[in-house]
Amino acid sequence: MFITFEGGEGSGKTTAIKAITKLLQKDGYKVILTREPGGPRISEDIRNVILDKKNTMMDKRTEALLYAASRRQHLIETVWPNLKKGNIVICDRYLDSSLAYQGGARKIGIDNVLNMNMFATEGTFPDLTFLFDIEPKLGLKRISKNKGREVNRLDLERISFHNEVRKNFLLLAKRYPKRIVKIDASKTPEEIVKEVYRAIKKRLKK
Amino acid sequence: MFITFEGGEGSGKTTAIKAITKLLQKDGYKVILTREPGGPRISEDIRNVILDKKNTMMDKRTEALLYAASRRQHLIETVWPNLKKGNIVICDRYLDSSLAYQGGARKIGIDNVLNMNMFATEGTFPDLTFLFDIEPKLGLKRISKNKGREVNRLDLERISFHNEVRKNFLLLAKRYPKRIVKIDASKTPEEIVKEVYRAIKKRLKK
Repeated sequence: MFITFEGGEGSGKTTAIKAITKLLQKDGYKVILTREPGGPRISEDIRNVILDKKNTMMDKRTEALLYAASRRQHLIETVWPNLKKGNIVICDRYLDSSLAYQGGARKIGIDNVLNMNMFATEGTFPDLTFLFDIEPKLGLKRISKNKGREVNRLDLERISFHNEVRKNFLLLAKRYPKRIVKIDASKTPEEIVKEVYRAIKKRLKK
Repeated sequence: MFITFEGGEGSGKTTAIKAITKLLQKDGYKVILTREPGGPRISEDIRNVILDKKNTMMDKRTEALLYAASRRQHLIETVWPNLKKGNIVICDRYLDSSLAYQGGARKIGIDNVLNMNMFATEGTFPDLTFLFDIEPKLGLKRISKNKGREVNRLDLERISFHNEVRKNFLLLAKRYPKRIVKIDASKTPEEIVKEVYRAIKKRLKK
């Protein structure tokens, strides 16, 4: 089973994933926790090109193609081999992030980014996706608190962008209601872990 | 006008391009001669990932996505700005190489690679493409001669691959008869330059 977790910054996604992985492992499942680029040397090399601060001229479609290339290699080297062995693969962000960020918020168009990613993934959609939904302002406050600093002007400017990202994630949840489970990320971590764990167990029993 | 040159190794393409560029410049045209990655820092970085010998696990679709990302950035930084100024842009290899090598010879499928490249190019096809067609064995002999060595066993193994590439280039010439002009690359360099020059001038007068 291929499970992905999506959501904006400060949604508590990463903390929850770790707890859920442990719970499933306790139950005896073999669980692989990964994230893109997640190991493959080639994907790390690609990520370095994307994140290189000297590459300020990078076009948004170039960026989307590089993310897709990295995704492809991660599928080849990590995701597919583990799914083949019957393991549960949990991935911190996947295709929906490209659709919401590049497709929606950066205005390339969700379907344009999806079609291009069909080339990269050959149609590998997650079996189950948890969307950690949170009001961007609240997510931002959490991050600032973690970093021990106040919310600043730049943070606030970024809020309109994160509102766009959120809007597009919610659109995707409507488009794929069977695959995407929306989680109210303003709840306590304990409540969230319980909710996700229950949903996964239910799916595993099917 | 956007002109591309395509063809296998040893087809004499690169030598011909230089001569033609000079002839057109003599006529007073502003001509930009380029090749992918052709300058942009980002495209060079991507090329380094593709060519890094340590990346032996690279999947063929990952490679195709990286070529498309490099192509995109080259369009953004070099091709489109020059076309906008009314310059003639001559590019040594472009989209058709991806279609013939990755799509055809590497068996991803021409239409799969084309569709993905539509995302990268937003439909920018060349106005005119010269396909330098040559029997792979003959092209190989030329290269070996230039390098001052005999044709070896590895070269011969590669011939079946290059036969596939050639077959696919010829398929593309049939698919795009108005855009692609086939050049018999077994002719003398002088004959070839004359033929290409005439074809470009004819197109420029239209």
